[in-house]
Amino acid sequence: MLEHLKQEVLIANQELQKQKLVIYTWGNVSGIDREQGLIVIKPSGVAYDDLTAEDMVVLDLDGNIVEGRLRPSSDTPTHLELYRQFAGIGGVVHTHSLWATVWAQACQEIPCRGTTHADYFYGTIPCTRPLTPEEVAEDYELNTGRVVVERFQTIKYQEMPAVLVAEHAPFTWGKDPHEAVHNSVVLEQVAQMAFMTRQLSGHDGPISEHVLEKHYLRKHGPHAYYGQS
Amino acid sequence: MLEHLKQEVLIANQELQKQKLVIYTWGNVSGIDREQGLIVIKPSGVAYDDLTAEDMVVLDLDGNIVEGRLRPSSDTPTHLELYRQFAGIGGVVHTHSLWATVWAQACQEIPCRGTTHADYFYGTIPCTRPLTPEEVAEDYELNTGRVVVERFQTIKYQEMPAVLVAEHAPFTWGKDPHEAVHNSVVLEQVAQMAFMTRQLSGHDGPISEHVLEKHYLRKHGPHAYYGQS
Amino acid sequence: MLEHLKQEVLIANQELQKQKLVIYTWGNVSGIDREQGLIVIKPSGVAYDDLTAEDMVVLDLDGNIVEGRLRPSSDTPTHLELYRQFAGIGGVVHTHSLWATVWAQACQEIPCRGTTHADYFYGTIPCTRPLTPEEVAEDYELNTGRVVVERFQTIKYQEMPAVLVAEHAPFTWGKDPHEAVHNSVVLEQVAQMAFMTRQLSGHDGPISEHVLEKHYLRKHGPHAYYGQS
Amino acid sequence: MLEHLKQEVLIANQELQKQKLVIYTWGNVSGIDREQGLIVIKPSGVAYDDLTAEDMVVLDLDGNIVEGRLRPSSDTPTHLELYRQFAGIGGVVHTHSLWATVWAQACQEIPCRGTTHADYFYGTIPCTRPLTPEEVAEDYELNTGRVVVERFQTIKYQEMPAVLVAEHAPFTWGKDPHEAVHNSVVLEQVAQMAFMTRQLSGHDGPISEHVLEKHYLRKHGPHAYYGQS
Repeated sequence: MLEHLKQEVLIANQELQKQKLVIYTWGNVSGIDREQGLIVIKPSGVAYDDLTAEDMVVLDLDGNIVEGRLRPSSDTPTHLELYRQFAGIGGVVHTHSLWATVWAQACQEIPCRGTTHADYFYGTIPCTRPLTPEEVAEDYELNTGRVVVERFQTIKYQEMPAVLVAEHAPFTWGKDPHEAVHNSVVLEQVAQMAFMTRQLSGHDGPISEHVLEKHYLRKHGPHAYYGQS
Repeated sequence: MLEHLKQEVLIANQELQKQKLVIYTWGNVSGIDREQGLIVIKPSGVAYDDLTAEDMVVLDLDGNIVEGRLRPSSDTPTHLELYRQFAGIGGVVHTHSLWATVWAQACQEIPCRGTTHADYFYGTIPCTRPLTPEEVAEDYELNTGRVVVERFQTIKYQEMPAVLVAEHAPFTWGKDPHEAVHNSVVLEQVAQMAFMTRQLSGHDGPISEHVLEKHYLRKHGPHAYYGQS
Repeated sequence: MLEHLKQEVLIANQELQKQKLVIYTWGNVSGIDREQGLIVIKPSGVAYDDLTAEDMVVLDLDGNIVEGRLRPSSDTPTHLELYRQFAGIGGVVHTHSLWATVWAQACQEIPCRGTTHADYFYGTIPCTRPLTPEEVAEDYELNTGRVVVERFQTIKYQEMPAVLVAEHAPFTWGKDPHEAVHNSVVLEQVAQMAFMTRQLSGHDGPISEHVLEKHYLRKHGPHAYYGQS
Repeated sequence: MLEHLKQEVLIANQELQKQKLVIYTWGNVSGIDREQGLIVIKPSGVAYDDLTAEDMVVLDLDGNIVEGRLRPSSDTPTHLELYRQFAGIGGVVHTHSLWATVWAQACQEIPCRGTTHADYFYGTIPCTRPLTPEEVAEDYELNTGRVVVERFQTIKYQEMPAVLVAEHAPFTWGKDPHEAVHNSVVLEQVAQMAFMTRQLSGHDGPISEHVLEKHYLRKHGPHAYYGQS
């Protein structure tokens, strides 16, 4: 079942390694078939070089395993919560990529310091609050998804396809697994640029609002004019 | 038409990726045929691996498309303004390369901290002023070219083949597309060295004027003695 | 003798180079056969590309050479001391990998700043005290092992498979040579992340104790649920 | 003539590129035949990929070209001064490698912060004084060699095979071109480690004198015991 999606999710997982966002088994990608309400996700702790499409695990949105010989990623409940709450997303990525993780570990949000950022993320990239001891003790991975959703109460997930989980690392999403990985790659670049820009400038001031708007809107929405039509 | 120049521009665009100055479609190179008054530029949003010489877009200096099936780079009006105002240049490059972009995002000029810089750039690498809301709202890319030209009122473009656009990223140029890319590579190195040198020294002081002159002039102008004659 | 272990140790030594933890001959891996009480270690100063399984040196736990044409690594007495004192380890690694070495040179311990660290190391990664002139003058390499063991009087080596030797560089261990190298790779990542996190946050505060516990214990011990069973 | 030495110098020059110490034509290696009093050096401004053994230029110690179709490296007078003054060296390297150049640009010497440094360099890596306007105006490259020699009045070149030229970049040497390149690679590592160690520790204090001595002398001199005999 879902052979095409499994293939997409496989390729997207392998792409994490090619793009140097992960070492060993430090990341996972999932994708969803919205019509059937089923997600496909990487199995836990399996090396990217050994992965096959058949290793992928299929679950429903309540987390019941529908198909698969292997345990799904331990982060599966986080992915599921994002799919349940962000109705328009088709793929989710979690990595411990260096620069995004550094911002997450510092529990700091990434201000928009230039047009590279504005081309993809419509404003400051948010960071969740740290989880409480209770949230960690029970349903840790589900609660990780919940603090993300909580942080997005005043942010449109469609305009901000990335989040930092405090003390942990980033998640990104997109219309499909491929785009979610693309956003992880860009997040990593933007996180490094913002880090270095702060070191150089000594402050955190974001760029002008009008430059942010211009760059985001020339690539996104009805008036976009970047790329081919 | 302009088959040779298209090939040159194609190779120069691919070189951006090989030199790790770009990911995805984050940069563009153009070249000009001064006799015919025509420029050749990368199409917008096309991956470097997929590019062919036939994909290149030919425009006149007023921005009219003379040949090409695809939309030209969204930065085309900036390239055109540079060709119109800097009569001696034959190629233009725009990238979001990491270190040069960090300086641009900090809205800081790159002081000459050593002979590596002086070998290519005759003094401080300038940064434009930020664009006003009005300049961003209308003809944004053309105005980007204009603030570059404005910054060069007191600088000879022949001696300074690079500029940082504030809050954005660098542009470089050269006698042809190949040399413009070469200057982008060097700019990136010099930007990183200057960043680290400031971190180490705690100040911004440029190198001695006589060392700057010596190094620039042993590679450029009538008394150059570097390389083969 | 010990052909299988020699092969394991060979591969683990070559892995140091592949993982970019070493240049030239700047690191060494050993393994132990606990039943026979014999260790296998890289010969001193031999390039990884030239190494063969037959080049490996076999010693007993007192440091007597049992087999081998070549001198063992000059760090052998440190390895031996670790095998004698940490009864459960099967492999030891020493490198001068960049980021871990930087912390060692600064004589600073690596605080746990995020879950990447907590997944492998149960708390702060310790640093030894500097050796005294007397400890350096005689039995330097043995005393290096001794200050490591001294630092672990209040730490369980099973939960902390890494140490920084002050003014010098890291050692790591594991259940076999392969796992010891894996831990060196992770140490390097964690050391870099902690360095950058300090730069960004301006402080050294470790992550919440409950997050540290959760992440360590979901991968280690009887209640682990990461990976395949 | 000197076919063997030309081959050695060719390989050593190519090694600069493989080790990522140079881009374009930003470095040069030379070697000397002490019996004949002749040096072999890279031609100026020729790409490493295009170099052949026949391109190498042969000069006597006064700088007279003895053989070669091409101009020698513009830094040749510096190499010659080092060969004339440091009677025991067989190879010289000049690069603009990133981290060593950063220290040179900051006009700062590299303190010994750990055993990696002590294994190769017996103390602080020196930096020359800046050249005066007069020294730059006339015989610039010769005077570059002279300020190096001046800085070594109280340092043994045999124990310190590297120097930083203020505002410029490093030179290294060795018993032959291969060892000189090896020392450039190590210098680059040590320069980066020292930079990062300063950032982490907030001070510049060198390591203990007894650790420095121990590590230098276990690899160098009559009591060395590192490597195979």
